[in-house]
Amino acid sequence: MKNPFASIPDAHEREAGDVFAPAFNADGLVTCVVTDADDGTVLMLAHMNAQALQLTLETGIAHFWSRSRGMLWKKGETSGNTIAVEEMRVDCDQDAIWLRGRVAGDGVACHTGSRSCFYRAVTPGGQEGTFVLTRRG
Amino acid sequence: MKNPFASIPDAHEREAGDVFAPAFNADGLVTCVVTDADDGTVLMLAHMNAQALQLTLETGIAHFWSRSRGMLWKKGETSGNTIAVEEMRVDCDQDAIWLRGRVAGDGVACHTGSRSCFYRAVTPGGQEGTFVLTRRG
Repeated sequence: MKNPFASIPDAHEREAGDVFAPAFNADGLVTCVVTDADDGTVLMLAHMNAQALQLTLETGIAHFWSRSRGMLWKKGETSGNTIAVEEMRVDCDQDAIWLRGRVAGDGVACHTGSRSCFYRAVTPGGQEGTFVLTRRG
Repeated sequence: MKNPFASIPDAHEREAGDVFAPAFNADGLVTCVVTDADDGTVLMLAHMNAQALQLTLETGIAHFWSRSRGMLWKKGETSGNTIAVEEMRVDCDQDAIWLRGRVAGDGVACHTGSRSCFYRAVTPGGQEGTFVLTRRG
């Protein structure tokens, strides 16, 4: 699929303007963070190519590019945990997307069964200067 | 600097365990999303190499790797808008970090002067299937 989005080479224009011109990286991807539209919890971080971004905008349901599988990924297609987009934002240099969304089904965003992929905190370990992971929620 | 962190090749172990073993990409980086610890606003997205991650853990102040400048970046060193880390979380496959933090100084996280880098929403344009950016906050 052709990239249907504008391209703005000038950094200042990309930051200041009202033209949506996602700055895809060398692999054709932008990074996307998804938060819960209601309580702000960071649910997951994934990547979108132009097709995933276009489909997300057209359908209002989050689509990504799976780097591990090398294919378009409609999140929740098999689990039922699709993500309805409440708002899409783009950052200053337009290489990152923030989706505020709502997870369908049982509300679980992570393939491990946790609500959020970020279910562990990095906490001080037994010895000074060491760190371990502690489960949260 | 030597990477001081553990490495866990097995995906299941990396997801299920309590060992912090950040999965740096081919460029030696993990992606990091920073949210406001008080209201959950996504402030910025940046990258950390092993040194930036280690310094963040040791000092409690967010450090990143600037890909554009190719150097370690103590965010706010010149502006005064350093980020004090309230909590660090890691995602399931340990290639992404979520920092809940508080921005010092005037609370501005973005170099454009906006509080958040995500100051524009992607909204429907004048013609069907087109999208423009609309300033938020």
